[in-house]
Amino acid sequence: MALNVSQKLIKDHLVFGEMRPGSEIGLKIDQTLTQDATGTLVMLELEAMGLDYAKTEVSAQYVDHNIIQEDSKNPDDHVFLQSATKRFGLYYSRPGNGVSHPVHMQRLAQPGKTLLGSDSHTCANGCMGMLAMGAGGIDVAMAIAGEPIYIKMPEIWGVKLTGELPDWVSAKDVILEMLRRHDVKGGVGKIIEYYGPGLENLSAMDRHVIANMGAELGATTTVFPSDDEVRRFLKSQEREEDWVELVADEGAEYDEYEEIDLSELEPLIAKPSSPGNVVPVREVDGEPIYQSYIGSSANPGYRDFAIAAEIVKGKKIARGISFDINPTSRQMLSDLVDDGHIGSLLTAGGRLHQAGCNGCIGMGQAPATGRNSLRTTPRNFPGRSGTKEDSVFLCSPETAAASALSGEITDPRSLDMDYPKVIDKDQPTVDDALLEKPLSKEESQTVELEKGPNIASIPEMEELPDRIEIPVLLKMKDNISTDEILAGGARVLPFRSNLPEISKFTFEQVDESYHERAMDVRDKGGHAIIGGYNYGQGSSREHAALAPRYLGLRVAIAKDFARIHWQNLVNFGILPLTFLDESDYEDLEEGDVLEIVDVKEQLNSGNELTVQLKKKDKRFKIEHHLSERQVDIVLKGGLINWERKRQESHTS
Amino acid sequence: MALNVSQKLIKDHLVFGEMRPGSEIGLKIDQTLTQDATGTLVMLELEAMGLDYAKTEVSAQYVDHNIIQEDSKNPDDHVFLQSATKRFGLYYSRPGNGVSHPVHMQRLAQPGKTLLGSDSHTCANGCMGMLAMGAGGIDVAMAIAGEPIYIKMPEIWGVKLTGELPDWVSAKDVILEMLRRHDVKGGVGKIIEYYGPGLENLSAMDRHVIANMGAELGATTTVFPSDDEVRRFLKSQEREEDWVELVADEGAEYDEYEEIDLSELEPLIAKPSSPGNVVPVREVDGEPIYQSYIGSSANPGYRDFAIAAEIVKGKKIARGISFDINPTSRQMLSDLVDDGHIGSLLTAGGRLHQAGCNGCIGMGQAPATGRNSLRTTPRNFPGRSGTKEDSVFLCSPETAAASALSGEITDPRSLDMDYPKVIDKDQPTVDDALLEKPLSKEESQTVELEKGPNIASIPEMEELPDRIEIPVLLKMKDNISTDEILAGGARVLPFRSNLPEISKFTFEQVDESYHERAMDVRDKGGHAIIGGYNYGQGSSREHAALAPRYLGLRVAIAKDFARIHWQNLVNFGILPLTFLDESDYEDLEEGDVLEIVDVKEQLNSGNELTVQLKKKDKRFKIEHHLSERQVDIVLKGGLINWERKRQESHTS
Repeated sequence: MALNVSQKLIKDHLVFGEMRPGSEIGLKIDQTLTQDATGTLVMLELEAMGLDYAKTEVSAQYVDHNIIQEDSKNPDDHVFLQSATKRFGLYYSRPGNGVSHPVHMQRLAQPGKTLLGSDSHTCANGCMGMLAMGAGGIDVAMAIAGEPIYIKMPEIWGVKLTGELPDWVSAKDVILEMLRRHDVKGGVGKIIEYYGPGLENLSAMDRHVIANMGAELGATTTVFPSDDEVRRFLKSQEREEDWVELVADEGAEYDEYEEIDLSELEPLIAKPSSPGNVVPVREVDGEPIYQSYIGSSANPGYRDFAIAAEIVKGKKIARGISFDINPTSRQMLSDLVDDGHIGSLLTAGGRLHQAGCNGCIGMGQAPATGRNSLRTTPRNFPGRSGTKEDSVFLCSPETAAASALSGEITDPRSLDMDYPKVIDKDQPTVDDALLEKPLSKEESQTVELEKGPNIASIPEMEELPDRIEIPVLLKMKDNISTDEILAGGARVLPFRSNLPEISKFTFEQVDESYHERAMDVRDKGGHAIIGGYNYGQGSSREHAALAPRYLGLRVAIAKDFARIHWQNLVNFGILPLTFLDESDYEDLEEGDVLEIVDVKEQLNSGNELTVQLKKKDKRFKIEHHLSERQVDIVLKGGLINWERKRQESHTS
Repeated sequence: MALNVSQKLIKDHLVFGEMRPGSEIGLKIDQTLTQDATGTLVMLELEAMGLDYAKTEVSAQYVDHNIIQEDSKNPDDHVFLQSATKRFGLYYSRPGNGVSHPVHMQRLAQPGKTLLGSDSHTCANGCMGMLAMGAGGIDVAMAIAGEPIYIKMPEIWGVKLTGELPDWVSAKDVILEMLRRHDVKGGVGKIIEYYGPGLENLSAMDRHVIANMGAELGATTTVFPSDDEVRRFLKSQEREEDWVELVADEGAEYDEYEEIDLSELEPLIAKPSSPGNVVPVREVDGEPIYQSYIGSSANPGYRDFAIAAEIVKGKKIARGISFDINPTSRQMLSDLVDDGHIGSLLTAGGRLHQAGCNGCIGMGQAPATGRNSLRTTPRNFPGRSGTKEDSVFLCSPETAAASALSGEITDPRSLDMDYPKVIDKDQPTVDDALLEKPLSKEESQTVELEKGPNIASIPEMEELPDRIEIPVLLKMKDNISTDEILAGGARVLPFRSNLPEISKFTFEQVDESYHERAMDVRDKGGHAIIGGYNYGQGSSREHAALAPRYLGLRVAIAKDFARIHWQNLVNFGILPLTFLDESDYEDLEEGDVLEIVDVKEQLNSGNELTVQLKKKDKRFKIEHHLSERQVDIVLKGGLINWERKRQESHTS
């Protein structure tokens, strides 16, 4: 059977299930990527699992998110991450080395491999003929420990590219066109695979731009073939030996089809405050701006900065504009400096920032209240810039640079100049000074984890007892979000690598007394909570399961659960259960004591369990929806315990 | 009579008093400098004063402190400052243009002039043959409004420089030698004036380094002559016409004498956690470091970065070292880029940050807990780096660069290379793209102040009534600090341009109910507070007077006052009084109502006032120590009102 690129990648890594859209498959993971904001917890999970040494071919820990260092928490995290990478055999990309996605592409990506990353833009490396997917931290920890990732087999959406981009139109406009057509949910449950003659005119970095923002379409990932362009890129990185060809078979088919004629595209822009809110630039031409921002993993290439530099060269930006230049990798910055492009940007009035994610993830460069900010970044969700009432537009470097000069949104085609053709360098700087190689397994064994005062190991978690007798501490209404379970934000996030501290914020918006009450019964078997419909909606943050688990939550009964939070509860050893008869919800109160006996037998013998309410003469039925594997995980106390036992059995 | 340079500067600007050390003198101010952290309040004060247009020759507002922009507060401040500079006729140096002191030196400083700045390192421009002094915000606002500054005539301390610096020893080592000899209080009440043949070998930027850290000796300021070296510097900035010669008369004398033979100096370093804790580098050689930091107003010159670049060129910094490069002005950064020095620093593993104060004032780049940080900055007070348990050393760029390579504190003389001679460029980049010129007076009149949601005008403040009858809201113990009156820190500081908001934090550490109780009686004449000895010690922050004044504080009676806070109370229209008989302190209670009648007559007719305690049959004497001018200021309700009346009388 003729296969497309996505199918080849999946087939090569399939360890469980069948390639039928919608059915569960397990995939072997070759490479992982973690960034610092999610990576500290991943490293603590590896420690708790008792991992000896990474089982992947390549695992890299990047420091690109939290590099402002306003106090000791960021640098203490860096020191910890460095020690953990030494201990577990990972690459360590130091602060200042750049954004994970372009650095990974330059130095470590390999066609034909799978990449799992604890960052939603991991899909960017789909530009290299890889199956590159974002995932939760624990999934990446499991992958590092050698476990497959389990996902639903996506549909493969073939997008045929024809023609060639006109002057002043670039890769960013291609992905903005996809978002204009399909909005932010258009890619859910799909892999977007680009093919066709238009690919010839898109460099590997151009493809990175397009693959990166596949995340904004909600896609599982984006895949490009590994062709001569990928070979050229790897050769320029002195890694031609890592190249393999990976293209669709003649006659390969897709589950869905789409076509974009590149030659018909024009400069596009996503208006506030959604990446799907796309219109032609000319429709908003003339709107005054406050900021023009170049950089991020959505426009990370040498070309993206060089073209902006060529546009502003010898000119000055408009009075009052903040023209923020955010290099994405250190070796690319060296080239931009050497070639005079940084000089052009500075002389025009640019503010040059350190290489990293920076303002793209709200770490600095927030715009003034209510003022328009033009950015080459991938997202403009409300408030993401750091400014509550922000007004962020997403566009190409061409549009951002043209607008910096005029002080208002400007279609770059209206500039009185020839389109400066810039292409990626054939022999760029290759410099791994800040990309530290893994220690050998032998060297790694004596390394101690260096934990600053705000970093705490994940404590041992008990198995699920066979007889549960625990009080209900909270009974909640419908639609409780993970924000209500455990808030994000600057007050809480700094404690993400300190479970005892972060747990103090658990459910504080629901009931401030929860933490204290939970601690009272923590050593007496823990507690249960009751939820309504859609329990655990919202952000996928794992701490919303891990923190209550730390406080002794063992059983969550709800009318139903939001999908990802349900998965997180299972992963961290909390039993998620639903009512067979929803009227039982009404009879439950805070303070009731639940009793479930013969837990193991009940879980393994079917979907139903019986609950006895102590002191009340009531008994009711609840059900679980766990697979056999998931029953085992919950019984063992969660994935960390489950994996630790496997590690122990491997070594013994 | 033969005069030294300091005396000439003072004599030329003397509008009040006599040049006798210790006696009060008034000086005309030609130039002012404000930075953004202090400038927002200064601009609000100018607004409240009803200033029409700056009366100084040059007033410049720099944005260099708060440029991270994690949320809208920083950028909203920038927008406000830009509008205020347009409104009041000031220069506006945009974020990204660099640190106030070197930029002012490059573009606006003039020999023979006085400069008053709301930043303690304003003294740096003493390198240009100026009398350059740091002061409180309201003092600078008054200077912009055309008022003189009043200070005690300092002693002039002549420091004769002889010889020439050896290889690997530079200007930073000269000022570290002064700190080694005299510690952090050695310059109190003095102007340090450098003279002698050793000056010939110190460039204007070298002198900036030495003058800058005169602040760390506690000196009123530092003065260098305006000689051929200053002429050369101004010529390189295309401002030779601003040069005038200003050197000491033959036979000029000093109040004190000192001599430094430059040729006998060696690399020095200030150990944690005081700039006065100086030892030779060789004494701490080999201590492991975490960070090496180049930049700040204490080593701002082209030379300082270029020498670091030459030292690390073609090499790599040690594994795990954070090598932070903080350019100090945009035009200098352009030169460093063009000349390949930035390339050398990056290739060695440097992290290049935007031009500004940055980590020097704790805005980013905090070191990891307990790890050694080497910095070319002026201060290493505990916690200033942002890290609570920090360990910061101050040194020259030579020492910082040598240590980055080895990963431990390293005497640069031990490097196996010739000393790279770097001198400041004769034709550096001159680029005012981000230094906006003042509008003309006519243009300025129609400009509106742009106030984001966190910027509030200073409300009108009433005159002191002639009969005061107000309750005592607080009775405090000895040694109440301005931190207890109004805390600093990240929680409170963001509201420094929002008086109603920041006032909510007033006295919260003393009595949380204070704010509410003060608001209750605010419109009924206000209230009084009672302090013990040393009331208002600590930081000089003006908000510690302005915020309680906003809440209705009119009278503060204490056993005695810390000097600067006493001055701030007067400036903001609060009557500071001391007991004639300290036993009266014992009889006073919170809730007592004080009555003072014929306030104006009592204040003007001597130092004593009589207070009647309402309801209690008690009457006691208190005294004031106000000058005639200060009585007038307090009666009018503070300096802002006093100045507004003067502005009105000028224009009417």
